[in-house]
Amino acid sequence: MPELSKRAVQMPPSPIRKLVPFAEAAKKKGLHVYNINIGQPDISSPVNFLNAFKNHQINVLEYGHSAGLWEYRDELVKYYARFNIHITSDEIVVTNGGSEAIIFAMLATMNPGDEIIIPEPFYTNYNGFAVEAGVKIVPVTSRIENAFALPPIKEIENKISAKTKAVMICSPNNPTGYIYTKKEMEDLKTLTIENDLFFFCDEVYRELVFDGDVVTSIFHLNGIDDRAVMLDSISKRYSVCGARIGCLITHNKSILDTALRLGQARLCPPTMEQLAAKEAINTPQSYFEKVIADYKNRREVVFEELAKIKGVVALKPQGAFYTIVKLPVKDADDFAVWLLKDFESKGETVMLAPGNGFYATPGKGKDEVRIAFVLNTAAMRRSMEIIREALEVYPGRL
Amino acid sequence: MPELSKRAVQMPPSPIRKLVPFAEAAKKKGLHVYNINIGQPDISSPVNFLNAFKNHQINVLEYGHSAGLWEYRDELVKYYARFNIHITSDEIVVTNGGSEAIIFAMLATMNPGDEIIIPEPFYTNYNGFAVEAGVKIVPVTSRIENAFALPPIKEIENKISAKTKAVMICSPNNPTGYIYTKKEMEDLKTLTIENDLFFFCDEVYRELVFDGDVVTSIFHLNGIDDRAVMLDSISKRYSVCGARIGCLITHNKSILDTALRLGQARLCPPTMEQLAAKEAINTPQSYFEKVIADYKNRREVVFEELAKIKGVVALKPQGAFYTIVKLPVKDADDFAVWLLKDFESKGETVMLAPGNGFYATPGKGKDEVRIAFVLNTAAMRRSMEIIREALEVYPGRL
Repeated sequence: MPELSKRAVQMPPSPIRKLVPFAEAAKKKGLHVYNINIGQPDISSPVNFLNAFKNHQINVLEYGHSAGLWEYRDELVKYYARFNIHITSDEIVVTNGGSEAIIFAMLATMNPGDEIIIPEPFYTNYNGFAVEAGVKIVPVTSRIENAFALPPIKEIENKISAKTKAVMICSPNNPTGYIYTKKEMEDLKTLTIENDLFFFCDEVYRELVFDGDVVTSIFHLNGIDDRAVMLDSISKRYSVCGARIGCLITHNKSILDTALRLGQARLCPPTMEQLAAKEAINTPQSYFEKVIADYKNRREVVFEELAKIKGVVALKPQGAFYTIVKLPVKDADDFAVWLLKDFESKGETVMLAPGNGFYATPGKGKDEVRIAFVLNTAAMRRSMEIIREALEVYPGRL
Repeated sequence: MPELSKRAVQMPPSPIRKLVPFAEAAKKKGLHVYNINIGQPDISSPVNFLNAFKNHQINVLEYGHSAGLWEYRDELVKYYARFNIHITSDEIVVTNGGSEAIIFAMLATMNPGDEIIIPEPFYTNYNGFAVEAGVKIVPVTSRIENAFALPPIKEIENKISAKTKAVMICSPNNPTGYIYTKKEMEDLKTLTIENDLFFFCDEVYRELVFDGDVVTSIFHLNGIDDRAVMLDSISKRYSVCGARIGCLITHNKSILDTALRLGQARLCPPTMEQLAAKEAINTPQSYFEKVIADYKNRREVVFEELAKIKGVVALKPQGAFYTIVKLPVKDADDFAVWLLKDFESKGETVMLAPGNGFYATPGKGKDEVRIAFVLNTAAMRRSMEIIREALEVYPGRL
């Protein structure tokens, strides 16, 4: 058989891949597994979104525009204006989820071998996109002791090489929940201007803010129209992860033109979902108020329970619906497997996302896990209890 | 501003991009434009597919499996069995359209700089996927004089270099309508075995066959489980181009594993469309009978009318819904622009796809256009009349 490509070999498996067979075995044994390892919330999608499918009048499900249906993009312009983000509909390229927006941004701006600087821990799939585009992620470590704030600019500057083409952040951050301050964003802006870099900002958790913090969008910064690229998705905003509708937004006409050509090659994002997403833009504020209240309650419950566990270091996230937790264990990967394979509490256990999958620096995150607030408060509380009980008997505990 | 990537520069624009402003201007002038340039049929999608959206019971639109919903893949297995294609559900990776299946196949098997041999004319977007994957398409020219049959194997062999990793065909073919014979498929099989190459087969037009020809699937060949990859899509099968559901199928476990990891990075194809695609698998045979009869009637009408145009060389396609037509003009690109810019017949004109976009060899296809049978018979007849009238007065006529 002919050999596969180098990319095929480098393509990272899902960080929970190792856990899946153990989770399946646990379920087969009759155990109930609380899945707080993934970003799939149990929150209902908005009614107007769901009804759009029910009420469709389509007879031929046709291709749409490669950059997205104009009627959807026109609505998106209004949506962003509510956040003081001012763009035009021809500055939007609708994509197959936020994923494709990130790939398009990388393909458009970076050559194979080029480097992109990203604070770690970061959304683990950035690794996969980087392999596909042949580019290298250069991590700069943000630390729980420092609330996962932006590392000092000097530290980031030290990572810049002749190959560096871009800096990327995610705010509110997955997996830390940190929201970058206006000052930090301005510092990054200065850095990207001084070093002639692109600046990508993944803003998919815009709405999910718990304590009134202000989310600074990349488009709130002045003077970087040429280098600013926003990456967005409706997946978390409306709890419609399976819709696969995202977008890339930039004022840079050359990037837009390239993204359009990348879009033309794959024809278009799904038509029906764009029509539904258009309806979702009219989701009433009360929907978000309820969703945010739900996530906030879950966060409170998680932290109430985490406070009862000796040796745990965790920090209430300001936004998104994850938290990175430092556990009193040598190897959180091993702990996550052990939870599924060797532990149970009253017929129940928990599936966690090991922290090392969110770091590019080898060895980092080894004693951390990511917890996602994707279950109701009772289930979140019970999950934390299970972790506490498990840590009391786990052989690898420090 | 930082420079864009080399890929951005190489990314081919849509071959009709140059025509679009002229088409828009023509419409603004009040002209009716017959769009026979694109593969967007006017054929109704099956009722059971459309109703699946109307009848959905989803409350949270969740991520599905990265390789596609199991319930959809299980149905696909049954669908393929009807064509004597025997696969298992874990040999299918559902993709965002056939487009993503092709990209996944290239990314999994080819390094940047590697070469893939494809008979030209070929589906124009292969060019874009090749740029994204950094691979080079090496064309081998099939000729209208030879009914667009597979060029002699010797000619293909001569194209093989140390960089060649794969051969790809599309059967029934877009844009020629040619259906590769069992003998040709076997010859390609032998070639790929002898030269240790992958063999990709794009089979999206499987159902659309007009004269009872047998379509040989790559999975009807024995002894190439390791190198055979099928690329498929429901877009044309059910006239649901906007659904964006395709798949990659192979018996090769390493390719499947890589395609799954590529799939995990982008999470999943759209959930709602997969549920609808699952329903579409039960589309009654009468639907296809009617669709094929419609396309066949259009084909007859087009060829009746083409026969009246002096200097035209065209060949009834065996399958799909396109035909490549050689026109008595020096530059079909110029003719296509002229039709929109400078010609009208009773307030109407035609938009054609210039042939050169379907060739990789420079200069090839310069006097050809692709006609798509995507309008009803009256509109197809009128379009051909317009072309005839236009050629009578076109200054660039040979």
